[in-house]
Amino acid sequence: MELKISVEQYEAIVSERLPFATLMGLKLERISEQGVIMRACYQDAFLRPGGTIAGPIMMGLADAAMYALILSRIGPVELAVTTNLSINFLNKPLPGDVIGDARMLKLGKRLAVGEITLYSDGGSREKPVAHATATYSIPPAT
Amino acid sequence: MELKISVEQYEAIVSERLPFATLMGLKLERISEQGVIMRACYQDAFLRPGGTIAGPIMMGLADAAMYALILSRIGPVELAVTTNLSINFLNKPLPGDVIGDARMLKLGKRLAVGEITLYSDGGSREKPVAHATATYSIPPAT
Amino acid sequence: MELKISVEQYEAIVSERLPFATLMGLKLERISEQGVIMRACYQDAFLRPGGTIAGPIMMGLADAAMYALILSRIGPVELAVTTNLSINFLNKPLPGDVIGDARMLKLGKRLAVGEITLYSDGGSREKPVAHATATYSIPPAT
Amino acid sequence: MELKISVEQYEAIVSERLPFATLMGLKLERISEQGVIMRACYQDAFLRPGGTIAGPIMMGLADAAMYALILSRIGPVELAVTTNLSINFLNKPLPGDVIGDARMLKLGKRLAVGEITLYSDGGSREKPVAHATATYSIPPAT
Repeated sequence: MELKISVEQYEAIVSERLPFATLMGLKLERISEQGVIMRACYQDAFLRPGGTIAGPIMMGLADAAMYALILSRIGPVELAVTTNLSINFLNKPLPGDVIGDARMLKLGKRLAVGEITLYSDGGSREKPVAHATATYSIPPAT
Repeated sequence: MELKISVEQYEAIVSERLPFATLMGLKLERISEQGVIMRACYQDAFLRPGGTIAGPIMMGLADAAMYALILSRIGPVELAVTTNLSINFLNKPLPGDVIGDARMLKLGKRLAVGEITLYSDGGSREKPVAHATATYSIPPAT
Repeated sequence: MELKISVEQYEAIVSERLPFATLMGLKLERISEQGVIMRACYQDAFLRPGGTIAGPIMMGLADAAMYALILSRIGPVELAVTTNLSINFLNKPLPGDVIGDARMLKLGKRLAVGEITLYSDGGSREKPVAHATATYSIPPAT
Repeated sequence: MELKISVEQYEAIVSERLPFATLMGLKLERISEQGVIMRACYQDAFLRPGGTIAGPIMMGLADAAMYALILSRIGPVELAVTTNLSINFLNKPLPGDVIGDARMLKLGKRLAVGEITLYSDGGSREKPVAHATATYSIPPAT
């Protein structure tokens, strides 16, 4: 499998075109044939009552990891957009980095579906903090 | 129906305890017997490729509107947490404020479920930009 | 708005082509500009522990109501298929008919999204038994 | 890990208490520490337009596989009920048996969350026909 975008290319798109991802401290760590690893670098602004990480950080991480995964498979099609995202929050995250591991479930011509498992950095792989599935719509090639 | 929290009380909780909501420009507009209206006040940082609003802003808005709705029904139980959120993105939002309208579907002792419809400010009510459902877990009273 | 299929036309498709809907006792009651009303006619086979209706009956009802809704808007495009369905079970259904009320959230060229609220026949409109959202993929016109 | 219910015990509950699962041709194949394998044994009544399997069969299979998984972890707590199920349909199933592979994502005291991957019997493991996540509410022990 050929990877159609590098970590550097993805980060260049984000730094120019997706400022909110930068505000969320998102950092793409790895693109491979297995999937994509993305990190939300901890900021105190992520905290919510209970000493844990606010849900929108995890939703944003899941969505961005899936976006990077799709671009790595189809190339820099920036106009790919989320049509559906469903997330289950499973275990209370530690107040630290959160890591998202995105895998493709189906890559079609019109729709791509993936699952994203989220962990606390340093936490057990057996106790993910959240699990999401996301569907993206891929615009017709022009 | 007695409303158990005011707009001011909610905003006080958020400004002290949920800094990320402030970064997202979220502003609670109204709590009523029908539900809750919350606004994501536009910032250029919300943009994504396509000249539209990034998905995580809308997910954060939906989640926060549901949180405010629950607190308005059960009082300031800050430890209520999202267990599931599912969102469908429907129409491309304008580059402006997004408004979330949250209604309760079920308020149980352990779980609360609501739906949140999102509109572009100034856009048609017939063309929502997104629709979400969210489930919160309510901690046992102590 | 022109309705593109009648109750009779829908029932003809189902009786020939969707035998499982018949096994589930599904009956289309009404197609209108507002949406579609479908009924799952009670059978003892629907029961599950707790003296209530098994979840798959409600999932099947939601899915079929959405299918009828789409066909009523685009005509008898039988190959429209569900891509995503998310359902929240809210209140315990009575052991009787269940009624599904489907409304369109977005009708696009490639995707249609709707919401379906389910009630026990004779139960309160304030206490739906379930709420679902469903996305269908619409095949390209040939 | 101790398995709290056997295949035979599960099938006894279903044959007495969940007649609809029998109508759907569901057969529990294996309970293990990894998870649960359940099969929907093909009937012509499963077909839908396109020569493929109707969605409700797959939703029922996913829901039942998750129910068996939970009972295998907590014992025969028949009143465990689905609170949320979200399914993505990925690839067109063959007209034959469908197999569901359920794994636990989180087993809490009040909620259990799992994921269920569905395959066509004889089809590629690389091309699942559907993927679901389901949350069950576990009643308080009495």
